[in-house]
Amino acid sequence: MSDEERRGVTAFVPGHITAFFSAHRTDDRDTTGSRGAGVTLSNGVEVTVDPTSDRRVTLDGRRVDVAPVDGVLDELGVEAAVEATTTLPIGAGFGVSGAFALGTALAANAAAACTHTENELVSVAHRAEVAAGTGLGDVVAQARGGVPVRLEPGAPGHGALDGIPARSRVEYVTFGDLSTETVLSGDTTRLSRAGERALGGLLDEPTLPRLMAESRRFAADAGLLTERVADAVAAVSEVGGEASMAMLGETVFALGTGLTDAGYDPEVCHTYPAGASLVDLAE
Amino acid sequence: MSDEERRGVTAFVPGHITAFFSAHRTDDRDTTGSRGAGVTLSNGVEVTVDPTSDRRVTLDGRRVDVAPVDGVLDELGVEAAVEATTTLPIGAGFGVSGAFALGTALAANAAAACTHTENELVSVAHRAEVAAGTGLGDVVAQARGGVPVRLEPGAPGHGALDGIPARSRVEYVTFGDLSTETVLSGDTTRLSRAGERALGGLLDEPTLPRLMAESRRFAADAGLLTERVADAVAAVSEVGGEASMAMLGETVFALGTGLTDAGYDPEVCHTYPAGASLVDLAE
Repeated sequence: MSDEERRGVTAFVPGHITAFFSAHRTDDRDTTGSRGAGVTLSNGVEVTVDPTSDRRVTLDGRRVDVAPVDGVLDELGVEAAVEATTTLPIGAGFGVSGAFALGTALAANAAAACTHTENELVSVAHRAEVAAGTGLGDVVAQARGGVPVRLEPGAPGHGALDGIPARSRVEYVTFGDLSTETVLSGDTTRLSRAGERALGGLLDEPTLPRLMAESRRFAADAGLLTERVADAVAAVSEVGGEASMAMLGETVFALGTGLTDAGYDPEVCHTYPAGASLVDLAE
Repeated sequence: MSDEERRGVTAFVPGHITAFFSAHRTDDRDTTGSRGAGVTLSNGVEVTVDPTSDRRVTLDGRRVDVAPVDGVLDELGVEAAVEATTTLPIGAGFGVSGAFALGTALAANAAAACTHTENELVSVAHRAEVAAGTGLGDVVAQARGGVPVRLEPGAPGHGALDGIPARSRVEYVTFGDLSTETVLSGDTTRLSRAGERALGGLLDEPTLPRLMAESRRFAADAGLLTERVADAVAAVSEVGGEASMAMLGETVFALGTGLTDAGYDPEVCHTYPAGASLVDLAE
């Protein structure tokens, strides 16, 4: 492979809205993670990695400090210009930090001609997210795609995943951000109890409507609902739709045309059938 | 959900070429399977399931008896018209029977409003393939997508998968069929020893070129090469390309433009980044 071919490798990582979760911490970042479920999205993060001696990380053209991205580059031993672009809102419950970390891992591995497997790269990104406190389950969900159910917490080889065999249009509106780090660094006992209950309910009836119902119950039980979110969820229910709150962001997501039918002007995407992957390379 | 909405659900399952494998049999169809590696393909099988009282299974418009498809319908308790179409050659090492079974499971689950998870549906299709003797590892590979490495044999919850983070154009030519059932029902000791060696080699250097090199070594060690296959593989090597034999079929597959460069007129597709899934439903 020539030096030129190694440059500028791009990966796409789907967004991920967590519908509900429980937090599981150990002394080991590989076994730390979350149980729960959510939807991966056709709107995601595109990450291009170009090895250079000078590390430079940008998001939509602006210099950013993203701890999980630095963690990935450090563990892989790669110095690079990392450019990410996304249409997703930041800090609003779409797993942008996890996507940024996972995309960096996949693209850096290819760009720097490392020879890690996919499980190893997912583990690198998962550990970096856990270490940064920015997420517990987005990376493994984004590596899988579809409608992921996190049965057991942790990186590949430790965690366990399943999925709901369904596809759907997904709409969302964002009113503001919530700090995942703040919520995750606080007492998550009540939240985790609600999350375990929601997962049990979903596994009794693994369908998209049940996922949304368990997510609504979780948001209420965990005490996370804001007034704007509660109003939008109620408005979608009133027109017969299915909506809930994204964990963790002041974001409402709905199946089908739920938010449109309720009079909102949402962003529109779909569940994404594939996990994170390199963008097609000419070969 | 109305009766009309439940009808005619379609799933797409990528083709899968096994590059090498070892066979692992137990008394339990869930833990029986294969280790090995291969490539999933953008050419695959589209399966439409329409529940009726009268079971009717067709492939490209012709009535067929496909034991794994009957096994899936029996286990799900669904009677249906099952129509499959494919551009892949049959019985030539592309995992058509596994794709047919897995597509039937996914589409029947949705069409008959069953509520199984993806892992459950993959397990149903895997067990049906094992019981029919038509395959050991295609189903779990086709459920994953990408360039799957089967680390441990068996259905979800028993087996373990990884992947090579790469994409490629794939070319193939088929000279004839080989019976998977005949090879798998014979003595697979020598073959499995070669397969274990190949997997060890690939895990030392998990890249596409190494996958192809291990596949060539496996084909020779396992004594499966026919003259036409050996000639085509050699012709691709002579022009600097990477080719090997599909397990199990009289088929040669190559990365990039290997077969074209060697003067063949191959079919052309690509590695497929997603696993099997329902074809987008209007919602």
